[in-house]
Amino acid sequence: MKAEIIAIGTELLLGQIANTNAQFISEQLAALGIPVYFHTVVGDNPTRLRAQLEISTKRSDILIFTGGLGPTKDDLTKDTIASFIHRSLVVDEEGLEQVVSFFRKRNVPMTDNNIKQAMVIEGATVFPNKTGLALGMAVHNEGKHYLLFPGPPNELKPMFIHYAVPYLRQIVPEANVVYSKVMRFCGIGESALEKELEDLIDAQENPTIAPLAKQGEVTIRLTSFAKNKEEAEQSMQDTIKEITSRVGEYLYGWDDDTLESVACSLLKKRKWTLAAAESCTGGLFSHSICTISGASEVFKGSVVCYTNEIKEEIVGVPKSVLLKEGAVSSSTACFLAQGVKERFHSDVGLSITGVAGPATQEGKPVGLVYIGMHLPSGEVVKELRLAGDRNSIQVRASKLALFYLIKELQKG
Amino acid sequence: MKAEIIAIGTELLLGQIANTNAQFISEQLAALGIPVYFHTVVGDNPTRLRAQLEISTKRSDILIFTGGLGPTKDDLTKDTIASFIHRSLVVDEEGLEQVVSFFRKRNVPMTDNNIKQAMVIEGATVFPNKTGLALGMAVHNEGKHYLLFPGPPNELKPMFIHYAVPYLRQIVPEANVVYSKVMRFCGIGESALEKELEDLIDAQENPTIAPLAKQGEVTIRLTSFAKNKEEAEQSMQDTIKEITSRVGEYLYGWDDDTLESVACSLLKKRKWTLAAAESCTGGLFSHSICTISGASEVFKGSVVCYTNEIKEEIVGVPKSVLLKEGAVSSSTACFLAQGVKERFHSDVGLSITGVAGPATQEGKPVGLVYIGMHLPSGEVVKELRLAGDRNSIQVRASKLALFYLIKELQKG
Repeated sequence: MKAEIIAIGTELLLGQIANTNAQFISEQLAALGIPVYFHTVVGDNPTRLRAQLEISTKRSDILIFTGGLGPTKDDLTKDTIASFIHRSLVVDEEGLEQVVSFFRKRNVPMTDNNIKQAMVIEGATVFPNKTGLALGMAVHNEGKHYLLFPGPPNELKPMFIHYAVPYLRQIVPEANVVYSKVMRFCGIGESALEKELEDLIDAQENPTIAPLAKQGEVTIRLTSFAKNKEEAEQSMQDTIKEITSRVGEYLYGWDDDTLESVACSLLKKRKWTLAAAESCTGGLFSHSICTISGASEVFKGSVVCYTNEIKEEIVGVPKSVLLKEGAVSSSTACFLAQGVKERFHSDVGLSITGVAGPATQEGKPVGLVYIGMHLPSGEVVKELRLAGDRNSIQVRASKLALFYLIKELQKG
Repeated sequence: MKAEIIAIGTELLLGQIANTNAQFISEQLAALGIPVYFHTVVGDNPTRLRAQLEISTKRSDILIFTGGLGPTKDDLTKDTIASFIHRSLVVDEEGLEQVVSFFRKRNVPMTDNNIKQAMVIEGATVFPNKTGLALGMAVHNEGKHYLLFPGPPNELKPMFIHYAVPYLRQIVPEANVVYSKVMRFCGIGESALEKELEDLIDAQENPTIAPLAKQGEVTIRLTSFAKNKEEAEQSMQDTIKEITSRVGEYLYGWDDDTLESVACSLLKKRKWTLAAAESCTGGLFSHSICTISGASEVFKGSVVCYTNEIKEEIVGVPKSVLLKEGAVSSSTACFLAQGVKERFHSDVGLSITGVAGPATQEGKPVGLVYIGMHLPSGEVVKELRLAGDRNSIQVRASKLALFYLIKELQKG
């Protein structure tokens, strides 16, 4: 059973919105073990939608449509599909009742075009809409399943979960339970990680092993097909063990973990508080910690010390160090970490100082960054050489600071 | 000239990410006056990508591909397109030099698979990558244009703007000169703005008027079709005058302006320096200023004062104020702005304190935020009531702080 997702809407082709519905539905189908082979977006145009129907019915078994079910003239998904499979549109009585009472309740006259939203393709299984007026539906025709949903995400999502998921469960074969686990890495690039795991990736079968890079991080998604969750988890154990034995030093979390959430929970566990002194990242590290609700339990605050004067006067880096070794140096990183720790009365002080670019600074190259940590267990400095533009250097420096903090917090 | 956008990446079909690249490119093409008829997503699978190439070359003149240009085995966009148009892949020397020096700089051994990123299709116009390693390119073959871009948005976007836009301008017919102007607003919602301009939007023709909301900001894109830039600009003057007369108080910039860039250049113009004290935004305001290169000329730094202790000890808010009125209060906002201004010896002090949620604080509701400013011209406090989750409250508070700062800096 192969699926594809077809969105109908000129607003998508104009770039006014992103096709987040396709992402949502893909996630749902992945969890059901239904492979999705294509996403398509077509405009509100019956000729092009019909051409797409020709293509899609040939290559897929389940066709999922979003959008074009509303009351206006350019809403033509239902008409086009009905005509394509030679069926007519009929009124769904319950749906019509809902439309009529919606306008009655709001005391607004109902225009005739609203009846359209209660029309369904003959023989369809109707999916009620609890958050809007346009009905969804599923039609089975010559071995193909056509599922239609309204475009607004707040209508589509509950409708998909409550009605489409049970419908799809009935039509996909029993064996296809899918189980996914995500391993999260930092401090290693995608190609280096993949090189370490090349033989595993080449030999992958069940579970499958899919690396994915995002700025400053890499994830590996393991996906197992099995009879049930337990069997799936079992089938992953050896792969996880093998991956961890090779690149475990870069592993920082699982599934929905983030660098911030892992750092905060480790600090909480140790009952330690954190303060930071940021130069080149300008507050990004602090803000990323503060995206976690409850961060105030472990995070006291920070000084963004964008000038030498602030590094000296507010955080207490000795003038001689700034003059001799410069703001971007291992010594300054240490003094910043220690200074902010002392002034903020925290257990851990962390500092980031470097050259984000575009220009060099103190004769030091763009991408040179020092991360300093002052912990109850001692002092640590990391020297990084980061590539990329100003923004990616800031993002990577901030993420690596979190990563090295996590590594320190995980120690004995 | 019809265009379509084809993304290659199994992670999209699994729902791990949304296809925001298609949205970005669609917006860009709309501004160029090039109609987009389809978006497609295919997996990292050469057979299905080839099948899609058969379909897409038949119906479109410009095919834009994103993703699958990386170093790993499942990156096969280039190979598949090259073989489809019967061309070979060749090494781009400059690109290779960049890859080699990337690894040399970081002192990391370069794995062989990285050479792939410097390979281009024979005869291609190469698009350099300033933020990553995979090259982009454009190939013209039998009347069709194939444009290839890497998947990561931070690599694709600058590459598209700097290289693809001029390339596409050359290949779209002369008559279609399209001129766009973006008006940037803050402090007003999309529907309120649209209400103010309803009659203009309904009557729009040339220029067209397209409002678009993003978190905390609204833009209006005016687009004129004309013979040349001067004529286009002329045709916009009346519309701009009318819009400004109605909602000019919320207008902060034009085209590529950002809140950060406008704030920095106004500070520069006045030769004023800025320091900030951030509570609920946790460093986001400071970081957003520091995304501007050259921010150090006007920005001295900030204190992220996430606890009352830090507000008192480091920024100097009187304990009595914190006890009586609370951390989230107009008085605390004033003392924070004044305190950071004095301690950092800056001309302007700005503070943000509020309840980002999810829980209420000091019995004050989620979304209540105070922005304080201490300027040479006097003191200003703004009280905001923001809606949304923790993240959007933080983003909106930070953007509104920039907006109100801009408004103060623009005064006499």
